[in-house]
Amino acid sequence: MSSVTVSPPVSRPHAFASVFALLTPHMAELDRFLRGQMTSFEPEIRGMADYCIDTTGKRIRPALVFLSGWRGPGAVTPDLVRVAAVVELVHLATLVHDDIMDEADVRRSRRTAAREFGPTAAVLLGDALFAHALHLATQFPTTEICAAVSDSTRKVCAGEIVQTLRRRSTNVTRADYQRIVDLKTAELFRVSCFLGARLAGFEGGYVEAVSRFGRHLGIAYQIYDDLLDFFGEEARVGKTLGTDLVSGKLTLPLLILLERLSADERMTLTAELAGERPPQPLLRLGQMRELGVFAAVSQAVEAEIAAAIGALRDWPDDAPTPLLLGLCDVLQAQVASVRPSG
Amino acid sequence: MSSVTVSPPVSRPHAFASVFALLTPHMAELDRFLRGQMTSFEPEIRGMADYCIDTTGKRIRPALVFLSGWRGPGAVTPDLVRVAAVVELVHLATLVHDDIMDEADVRRSRRTAAREFGPTAAVLLGDALFAHALHLATQFPTTEICAAVSDSTRKVCAGEIVQTLRRRSTNVTRADYQRIVDLKTAELFRVSCFLGARLAGFEGGYVEAVSRFGRHLGIAYQIYDDLLDFFGEEARVGKTLGTDLVSGKLTLPLLILLERLSADERMTLTAELAGERPPQPLLRLGQMRELGVFAAVSQAVEAEIAAAIGALRDWPDDAPTPLLLGLCDVLQAQVASVRPSG
Repeated sequence: MSSVTVSPPVSRPHAFASVFALLTPHMAELDRFLRGQMTSFEPEIRGMADYCIDTTGKRIRPALVFLSGWRGPGAVTPDLVRVAAVVELVHLATLVHDDIMDEADVRRSRRTAAREFGPTAAVLLGDALFAHALHLATQFPTTEICAAVSDSTRKVCAGEIVQTLRRRSTNVTRADYQRIVDLKTAELFRVSCFLGARLAGFEGGYVEAVSRFGRHLGIAYQIYDDLLDFFGEEARVGKTLGTDLVSGKLTLPLLILLERLSADERMTLTAELAGERPPQPLLRLGQMRELGVFAAVSQAVEAEIAAAIGALRDWPDDAPTPLLLGLCDVLQAQVASVRPSG
Repeated sequence: MSSVTVSPPVSRPHAFASVFALLTPHMAELDRFLRGQMTSFEPEIRGMADYCIDTTGKRIRPALVFLSGWRGPGAVTPDLVRVAAVVELVHLATLVHDDIMDEADVRRSRRTAAREFGPTAAVLLGDALFAHALHLATQFPTTEICAAVSDSTRKVCAGEIVQTLRRRSTNVTRADYQRIVDLKTAELFRVSCFLGARLAGFEGGYVEAVSRFGRHLGIAYQIYDDLLDFFGEEARVGKTLGTDLVSGKLTLPLLILLERLSADERMTLTAELAGERPPQPLLRLGQMRELGVFAAVSQAVEAEIAAAIGALRDWPDDAPTPLLLGLCDVLQAQVASVRPSG
């Protein structure tokens, strides 16, 4: 039996449904824009690029662009749509490459590009998506946008490399985990917020605050995603669960479980992570339930959400603020919805 | 016995040695610049990025940048060095990814990044190099440079994808081959020349002419490289030879051999290319010698060199012209030096 408690979602003017309702027309515009980009790809690879776009993805990074640059529903400029496409394409490119390395067959309930076209073509297709994202980023009056995006892209890759190098290593610390998350996830969240606010012409202090908001929300989101790998439901998440233990990736739920296990059990789990023993995901999930790991991890999510909210404390009256806070509600509600029933 | 004849290298004011002597100090500057870039990479991946830079590579694309922007030895600007670094980094990134896909262990007589760090890290490392190349390309006053580089990068990837998709396919035509070469090799040669001439402030017509020169030289170079895969010497080339037949890649030497073989022999070679029979590279090399394939392929190289020279015909007096023509001499001499002795 779990004794988990998480604070209920705080009620704010723009909660779940209303934030997404606001974004619906702009997401449709983004989809049209992305489809329109396909003609920029060589005819031979157009269908493959289109396959990567055609997802039922969550479009979180475009949402961050739109919300961080929010000045009203009629004020979503073509610049915001273009930069939303840039960050989404960078993200999609990283997914294409991630799925090769993870040897994943399915993502979002459809075959991965690696599975559909083979790993070799998928490496190159990811490259082409990256290149086109950065090409789109040059379609602004100055080099600032492209500079920010290429810098973030390199950081995302660095984060993924560090994670890869640490796989099956069992002396990963919380600081290591934090560093990986900061690079591989929080950076693109941060730059999405930065670009949205910047292109919408908000003042420097607010742009900086919104960027910090994005970073913390990104960390919170990644921790939530790592939680989902154990506590989610496969059908709903649309991908195979328990993969982090199987692939020897020391995420926060596993780090905390290691801290709380007896010395003997810790040795066994360490051997599973190192690939020296067959992994036992169901046993580990049960132990996470017993030892309050869910609560500890969701507290870590909460702490990052609190930091995100804190970043906007001095800017209550700017148009994006209540919407961005609404996103925090959404994430809190999602964490609450995966609360273990056992 | 082969009845091969190739025209001897045409003597021009700046031949082999003198062109490279001119470039030596600028290549040293490029090396210093590239090393200096390593601090832009996250500390965890700096050593890996450095490993990819540390090559005894030919630096052909930087040479094209320097020569196309040539206004005298004292006039190689920091802008030219930076853009030379950009195209070289894009090229190195494609090599890192190529070697994963080709499962190559050795390149330029040292272990490939894929072999040194594993394929997973190599995918991401290539991405990080791409991202940093494009970041460097944003360090110019306008977006033009980055736009040109990202566009070319996408084309290079598209070319590699088409080549990958056609592997083991035996109905590849000369037009298909031309298209692949144009995208995967000629495009980066072309853009190197374009960027060099553009940044050095040459007039539009000359920039365009030099770009066409670069494209044709790139095609010539790739055909030469494909010739080398059969007729080269492993120790000198620094990589395993005969790989195109083994991997089912229909390059020009194999296309021409297929055209010249008897119907029976053609069926056998087709089966080798399709992976249905064990490949017989030594037999095929012998047949290439007997059937004049070397001469036919080197004529194709010559035709592209002639087109490259033709592109500069109306611009004899601009400073880069004799140097670029000198590069043609170098390539002609290289083709002549692999002339089969058998």
